[in-house]
Amino acid sequence: MAQRRANCINVLSDLSKQSTDLPPSLAAPLEYALASGGKLIRPILCYSAARAIGGDEPADSAAPALELIHTYSLIHDDLPAMDDDDLRRGRPTLHKAFDEATAILVGDGLQARAFELLADAPDLTAEQKVRMIKVLAEASGFNGMVGGQYVDIQSTGKALTLDELKAMHAMKTGALIRASVALGGIAAGATDAQLAALDTYAERIGLAFQVVDDVLDVEGDTATLGKTQGKDEAADKATYVKLLGLEGAKAEAQRLLDEALAALAEFGESADMLRELGRFIVERDR
Amino acid sequence: MAQRRANCINVLSDLSKQSTDLPPSLAAPLEYALASGGKLIRPILCYSAARAIGGDEPADSAAPALELIHTYSLIHDDLPAMDDDDLRRGRPTLHKAFDEATAILVGDGLQARAFELLADAPDLTAEQKVRMIKVLAEASGFNGMVGGQYVDIQSTGKALTLDELKAMHAMKTGALIRASVALGGIAAGATDAQLAALDTYAERIGLAFQVVDDVLDVEGDTATLGKTQGKDEAADKATYVKLLGLEGAKAEAQRLLDEALAALAEFGESADMLRELGRFIVERDR
Repeated sequence: MAQRRANCINVLSDLSKQSTDLPPSLAAPLEYALASGGKLIRPILCYSAARAIGGDEPADSAAPALELIHTYSLIHDDLPAMDDDDLRRGRPTLHKAFDEATAILVGDGLQARAFELLADAPDLTAEQKVRMIKVLAEASGFNGMVGGQYVDIQSTGKALTLDELKAMHAMKTGALIRASVALGGIAAGATDAQLAALDTYAERIGLAFQVVDDVLDVEGDTATLGKTQGKDEAADKATYVKLLGLEGAKAEAQRLLDEALAALAEFGESADMLRELGRFIVERDR
Repeated sequence: MAQRRANCINVLSDLSKQSTDLPPSLAAPLEYALASGGKLIRPILCYSAARAIGGDEPADSAAPALELIHTYSLIHDDLPAMDDDDLRRGRPTLHKAFDEATAILVGDGLQARAFELLADAPDLTAEQKVRMIKVLAEASGFNGMVGGQYVDIQSTGKALTLDELKAMHAMKTGALIRASVALGGIAAGATDAQLAALDTYAERIGLAFQVVDDVLDVEGDTATLGKTQGKDEAADKATYVKLLGLEGAKAEAQRLLDEALAALAEFGESADMLRELGRFIVERDR
């Protein structure tokens, strides 16, 4: 996995160095955006799903493509017109380090590059690539990540029910996490039954991820989180902690983890990375 | 062509009506964005290129996909942090009619939807789809449209040379026009030689389009243009008119049209729509 992770980081950092065609002035903001020290949870989920099926190397294009989509969404979400964040992963957000126009355009270009990477993936069939592109486009668009962010922004200051909150997060963060696991599975040649099991795992882990985020927003501190602590509370946003209480939210995260692990029952040791990741997502402190 | 154009408009307007999965509050801004009465130059170029090869119907997914990319780019370019335009196609821009967050997210989602449309295209082989996705992603990303817009914004107030201006426009608008023609050709099963001829045509037409835009910015009036006239002058942007003079710019557009038509010499009557479009682009008044 260390080798695959290194490959993913290389693909990402190469993007800002392809300077023959790239406008030279774009290199600095691109490098800043891509060398941001993210946790690479989506690429690692993707590689781990591929490994559970038979081998992680076929996910070498999908993994960075997922991180490109995630990175573009953070850049746009941080903009003043959206969540208005000055700090991300412990550094000034892209629009603070450069400017808003740069942040909008870098985000736009990263999205295009994600689909280009999948279309260019070596050693996959055209059918696999088309299926992966379709899954990624759906997960990142109006019925997924973008739609969820829209609902989130629209609902600030409103009292969401638990079901509405779950539906919003299922789109905003859940869809891309499910796509991460699906792309790994497709790349490695998973059967439909295997993809269904992987999807149940991913759906539960995606929800758990968000529940833990809400817990950390209350319990964490700004230095450890690398972003402003208490921001959800200040923005009067609906959170799992508000709806379930702190202990209730922690219990919910644990229950979701148990269901995720149960979905992997048919897989052998090859799915141990997925199991470990599930535990990491629930037990992380940032 | 009227039937294909109607199909393209239907596909675009269906997008805002797919309300089963779509967050309901997204329907209004999406409908606003997609019913904007654009000239559909890119879809029509795409259909016309397909017709030149053998038939325009195979371009039924590519044509709206191109318009989605174009529409998203206009929405983002109009944002206050970018070109800061209040008026587009005779109506308030999306961020004026709704808000900036909506404009950013609608643009993001339209881009994803373009790639989804291509991945879903019926009656094309997976190989065709992958090739089309690759061409569209490259044309709309850092080495194309996004990169060109970035260079354009960075160069405001600077004295660009004619070569620099050409390079910027080749990326900003030229790349997507070339992709429009390429996607039509690929969908219709063009040979490499046919694609090369189509690309020469598209490259010249793309440049001519921008030269004429600059002429219209000086000669047109705001009501006819549907956007603010004289804006380039006010923003102190490099234009073909400034570098070549008004008559020089008009002569350049005519020269480019002649070269575009020459590239189509090997094609018969099936390329008449492409020829007509070339003339329209150079002779339009908005």
